[in-house]
Amino acid sequence: MKPIALLSDFGTQDWFVASMKAVILFVNPSAVIVDINHNIPAGDITAGAFNLLACHAYFPEGTTFVAVVDPGVGSGRAALAIKAGGYFFVGPDNGLFSLIIDNYYKFEVRSLENTRYFLKEVSATFHGRDIFAPVGAHLSRSVAFEKLGPKMKTIVRLSTIAAARADGKRILGTVAYIDRFGNAITTIPSSLASQASRIRVKGHTLPLCGRYSDVKEGKPVAVIGSCGFVELSVNRGSAAKSMKLAIGDAVTVDPD
Amino acid sequence: MKPIALLSDFGTQDWFVASMKAVILFVNPSAVIVDINHNIPAGDITAGAFNLLACHAYFPEGTTFVAVVDPGVGSGRAALAIKAGGYFFVGPDNGLFSLIIDNYYKFEVRSLENTRYFLKEVSATFHGRDIFAPVGAHLSRSVAFEKLGPKMKTIVRLSTIAAARADGKRILGTVAYIDRFGNAITTIPSSLASQASRIRVKGHTLPLCGRYSDVKEGKPVAVIGSCGFVELSVNRGSAAKSMKLAIGDAVTVDPD
Amino acid sequence: MKPIALLSDFGTQDWFVASMKAVILFVNPSAVIVDINHNIPAGDITAGAFNLLACHAYFPEGTTFVAVVDPGVGSGRAALAIKAGGYFFVGPDNGLFSLIIDNYYKFEVRSLENTRYFLKEVSATFHGRDIFAPVGAHLSRSVAFEKLGPKMKTIVRLSTIAAARADGKRILGTVAYIDRFGNAITTIPSSLASQASRIRVKGHTLPLCGRYSDVKEGKPVAVIGSCGFVELSVNRGSAAKSMKLAIGDAVTVDPD
Repeated sequence: MKPIALLSDFGTQDWFVASMKAVILFVNPSAVIVDINHNIPAGDITAGAFNLLACHAYFPEGTTFVAVVDPGVGSGRAALAIKAGGYFFVGPDNGLFSLIIDNYYKFEVRSLENTRYFLKEVSATFHGRDIFAPVGAHLSRSVAFEKLGPKMKTIVRLSTIAAARADGKRILGTVAYIDRFGNAITTIPSSLASQASRIRVKGHTLPLCGRYSDVKEGKPVAVIGSCGFVELSVNRGSAAKSMKLAIGDAVTVDPD
Repeated sequence: MKPIALLSDFGTQDWFVASMKAVILFVNPSAVIVDINHNIPAGDITAGAFNLLACHAYFPEGTTFVAVVDPGVGSGRAALAIKAGGYFFVGPDNGLFSLIIDNYYKFEVRSLENTRYFLKEVSATFHGRDIFAPVGAHLSRSVAFEKLGPKMKTIVRLSTIAAARADGKRILGTVAYIDRFGNAITTIPSSLASQASRIRVKGHTLPLCGRYSDVKEGKPVAVIGSCGFVELSVNRGSAAKSMKLAIGDAVTVDPD
Repeated sequence: MKPIALLSDFGTQDWFVASMKAVILFVNPSAVIVDINHNIPAGDITAGAFNLLACHAYFPEGTTFVAVVDPGVGSGRAALAIKAGGYFFVGPDNGLFSLIIDNYYKFEVRSLENTRYFLKEVSATFHGRDIFAPVGAHLSRSVAFEKLGPKMKTIVRLSTIAAARADGKRILGTVAYIDRFGNAITTIPSSLASQASRIRVKGHTLPLCGRYSDVKEGKPVAVIGSCGFVELSVNRGSAAKSMKLAIGDAVTVDPD
């Protein structure tokens, strides 16, 4: 049983996600379907990309990820499938898989052109149901990756988030994601911050601690978050609100 | 494996949907359960009916739909099951299945009166858990449809949405649904609009195009939507907001 | 197939719940996972506890409940598993299982200390993924309860909700939960109210009826709700809004 994990900005107030699941069960009646999240802000490719990065590696090998944040549906952007790290990823070529690609040395990309794995009728506005869901379902029942279409050499990359980089002894990164609790997750991996004790963002200097509760309630703190990145938090509060943090804000790790 | 698809207005902040799934797994431990949507506005039978219409035909044959938008629970409305198009539908008799019935020439309706397929104790306020979920689960494990209760000849129909009709050479329909993205889905099927090039709604005249991106960003456009109906949209915007569209608004297809 | 039911305050706009499901499927590829609700208000242990109480008994015997409302994660609170009523419960020791314990004469509690059933790396901030999900998955594949860790004698109890008690011939209880529809569910079980005909709350006197529709639309009414507790409602309206009810409000059943 190889799961299919779904991510989209389709929301949970219409039938869009259900249509995708219906098609998946039509193609593979024993599919095990898991929702990542369908409340990605409409068209927010960066948020979609970060969600995929944050959770994919906890899924069993062989899992297929069908991700649909697709503001350009019907406008001619490519459709693709990626094989990387023992996983498959299926969706539009618009940057949604940019962070996944950054994460693996080896990967292979195919352009979805073999219409045999699509629904018979493909609408102009709902490729999630008509292309990505059935392709994902076919992968989950072990259709060969190579059959999906020809190889692609490059994919569209995100321009919104800067990977962390060294500037002398300082590490420069950005806020990449704000979660439900108002924690600001940065692009700085734990490996680049483990020697440091302070993080700077927007005029604030935060201590890098082992856990939220190492500071008093209401106080800001940086921790190594559960995805392995430096995370800016407020103990039992919202860092995003109290420090007015936003995606793309510069974050600096100073040497001690 | 015949899936059970669930639709309700129970929301996702309480345990109501979970109680239905618990009962389904109690009756049929190997049930494959799919959520259509539990965020139907409370008591909005029209929205529930349209969600069922829009996605049901993508599910595999034999799927049972348990739909509970039931403002009159406990007030004596009938409970029913419908067999149509190779599917089963279970829920209250209040118009929720009106569009499904419109969609099929042949169907059979049973009144849910065989209490053998209910929970032992039936509450006054939660027939979704006590009647509809267990009946749906029994259908999914192949209990004969005829055993559920006696035949019913008529069901309650919706009065909120007008099916499209011809007026001379014009086609008259209504807005039937506003989706998450602000697209207004009409009751006009693609077959009645395919010869046309313009759609009128509330003083606006929209070009009927192949895709959203055939007009500039922010401009209104009509397309054949992914459910097969004429859909009023704004490229990368919200048609409902910018044209102030609402359920029941008149929509006209003029001859070219 | 023994289901795993998940409850949390992780919301549905990030990947947190998906990470837990990923870990569960990694440990037990044939797990049947059911969501109770992930929209518990952040840190609201009382609401989480009531959700568990309200639906758990409809699940099949052997179901494992993994519940994570855990504002004190990383601050040294215990982690536990409970065996009660043929079910397993896994999560933080902070009151979340208080109402479950109240509900059963016999139960056994284990402190989660056997790290063999955790993920290899345990983060400071996400025990839902790193401890509770894998422990729940191991229970669902029939790992012996005793292996999880040593016995615990007491667990943390809720202080927010008073169990109903007799005061002479009157029964005193509190509002325990407000559901999506604005119904106020009290701590007064049907057994303590079945002889009564009126319920008092905040200066209002409500008739105890068989169903909402026994009063006119817009009028307040008390019913025995679907969980077996006295519930304060307004026919086709919101009792919480119209009577301004809140968790902890005193509710009185007077003798006739």
